[in-house]
Amino acid sequence: MTKILDKTTIDKIINEASHEDLITYIEKAFTAYSSHNAIVPPVGSLTFNDPPGDMHIKYGYVRDDAHYVVKIASGFYKNPALGLSSSNGLSLVFNQKNGVLETILLDEGSLTNIRTAVAGAIVAKYMAPKNVKAIGIIGSGIQARLQLKYLKNIVNCTKVIVWGIDSNALQSYKEEMSKEGFDIEIASESKRLVRECNLIITTTPSESAIIFADDIQKGTHITAVGADTHGKQELDMAILEKAGLIVVDSLKQCRAHGEIHKAVNAGLLDNHQIIELGDVVFSGGIPGKDDDITVADLTGIATQDIQISNFVLNQLSE
Amino acid sequence: MTKILDKTTIDKIINEASHEDLITYIEKAFTAYSSHNAIVPPVGSLTFNDPPGDMHIKYGYVRDDAHYVVKIASGFYKNPALGLSSSNGLSLVFNQKNGVLETILLDEGSLTNIRTAVAGAIVAKYMAPKNVKAIGIIGSGIQARLQLKYLKNIVNCTKVIVWGIDSNALQSYKEEMSKEGFDIEIASESKRLVRECNLIITTTPSESAIIFADDIQKGTHITAVGADTHGKQELDMAILEKAGLIVVDSLKQCRAHGEIHKAVNAGLLDNHQIIELGDVVFSGGIPGKDDDITVADLTGIATQDIQISNFVLNQLSE
Repeated sequence: MTKILDKTTIDKIINEASHEDLITYIEKAFTAYSSHNAIVPPVGSLTFNDPPGDMHIKYGYVRDDAHYVVKIASGFYKNPALGLSSSNGLSLVFNQKNGVLETILLDEGSLTNIRTAVAGAIVAKYMAPKNVKAIGIIGSGIQARLQLKYLKNIVNCTKVIVWGIDSNALQSYKEEMSKEGFDIEIASESKRLVRECNLIITTTPSESAIIFADDIQKGTHITAVGADTHGKQELDMAILEKAGLIVVDSLKQCRAHGEIHKAVNAGLLDNHQIIELGDVVFSGGIPGKDDDITVADLTGIATQDIQISNFVLNQLSE
Repeated sequence: MTKILDKTTIDKIINEASHEDLITYIEKAFTAYSSHNAIVPPVGSLTFNDPPGDMHIKYGYVRDDAHYVVKIASGFYKNPALGLSSSNGLSLVFNQKNGVLETILLDEGSLTNIRTAVAGAIVAKYMAPKNVKAIGIIGSGIQARLQLKYLKNIVNCTKVIVWGIDSNALQSYKEEMSKEGFDIEIASESKRLVRECNLIITTTPSESAIIFADDIQKGTHITAVGADTHGKQELDMAILEKAGLIVVDSLKQCRAHGEIHKAVNAGLLDNHQIIELGDVVFSGGIPGKDDDITVADLTGIATQDIQISNFVLNQLSE
């Protein structure tokens, strides 16, 4: 008998979960992937034109795990005008030994948002400067909120500067995140944010660079989570060229359609050190950082979807 | 709110359906595909080793249709020993305009079986000899039953010869299909079946040829439905070489992993006419057949899964 969990049940489990536990599960997602202990085929996708939208299928399994997982997520960007969420989706959890569909997680995309935010926290755990002066958040949507929320207890800094293109959304961002204990300031231009923050997270669906190399301080770390599909870009390529270290969730995916895609194709990163996050987690950190600019490029990998599903199921059975 | 249909409900709808209506829906699956009116990305897949199994994801949409569909099907071949069906699966029906998951069809793979059998009936409708002397069925599993069941009213012949490797399964096949009004004879070797039948359907997961060119009568039509994934083969390559016409559900899929895959790679079919079933349906038939041997290679395409889902939903709303 297939068990079906609705969004309310899933969100309750996630809201009550310890961030530490979530981090442990998602760290395992990256180490399993980078140690080739997971089977992860290329991402499946569909594109729609009228109205515009896209759908991705991420799927696979970790060897010797109990399950295989198929995660479907969509983005239809004109939905909010119709009173619908732009993102949607579900995860299907099958028994790895007999193919029986054990659980359907009708999370409507919320688990994708959470596992992406937890990945940002893991990056910060290993790559943020020791002394974070201010956290810079580019964008004011769901991911801009969740990235900050999951930085609590990871980064010892409550000063936050946020920049985005929608002033109403920025106001409600400030109100909401202030309640979470952050001191939020809205920047009128991104340049000022970049000059004052040494931990920056970009969370937009932009298709061209919105922050630039000349503005970035020495020792800054930047995590880019927006470029999850072909054609998206948030960072000026010169930032990547200037970076002392680039960490990616998946070399294969990031080269194909991540933030580094264009710079790799332009040959700008031929002499750069690009390593996978799973290897950073496995070795417990990155080589001495000091004044280096570092960048993390997160496209989202199937093992994160597998592990967030495992997390929900294990909480349920406890 | 996502609607969830269980196997019992779905099977009831299919059992009460007119075969003519099903044929109309699945014919549209093929014409939409072959006229490039459907978006069908490459099939996604996973392979498991211990125990052996495989999983396929077929997905896509027909332009101007209401839905996009993701169909997941698995085969775990040691399941029957555990009292479980070897095949499993479900279909997810999403709104094409906003990504909302409208319906989950928990058919456990039965819709895949039906749309495959209906495809066989469509092939017979256009390609079977005018005078079928005897129907030959290779294999004695679910697909061997369904292919025959859906030939009723398509082919005016009740004489059937069946061959397979499991004598118990053949006995129960004979009992069951006799009740459906067929006169079933079990052949002790496949050679005799091939020599006496001029409409032959092969339904096995074989990985090497089980019927051979020298045994086949002039004017015979053969439909091969077993080779749905890399490494499978039911027909001697010389049969394909000898065929006056080869029809495939998808040129792309059949060349990559269908019954014709090996013969195409060996260059044996360079001068052969290979056309898609959708084009046969569209033009209303095949060029004069007479004494020619013809072959149909069915690998199963996503538009069939889309259309069988549409059929179930439309019956439900009536």
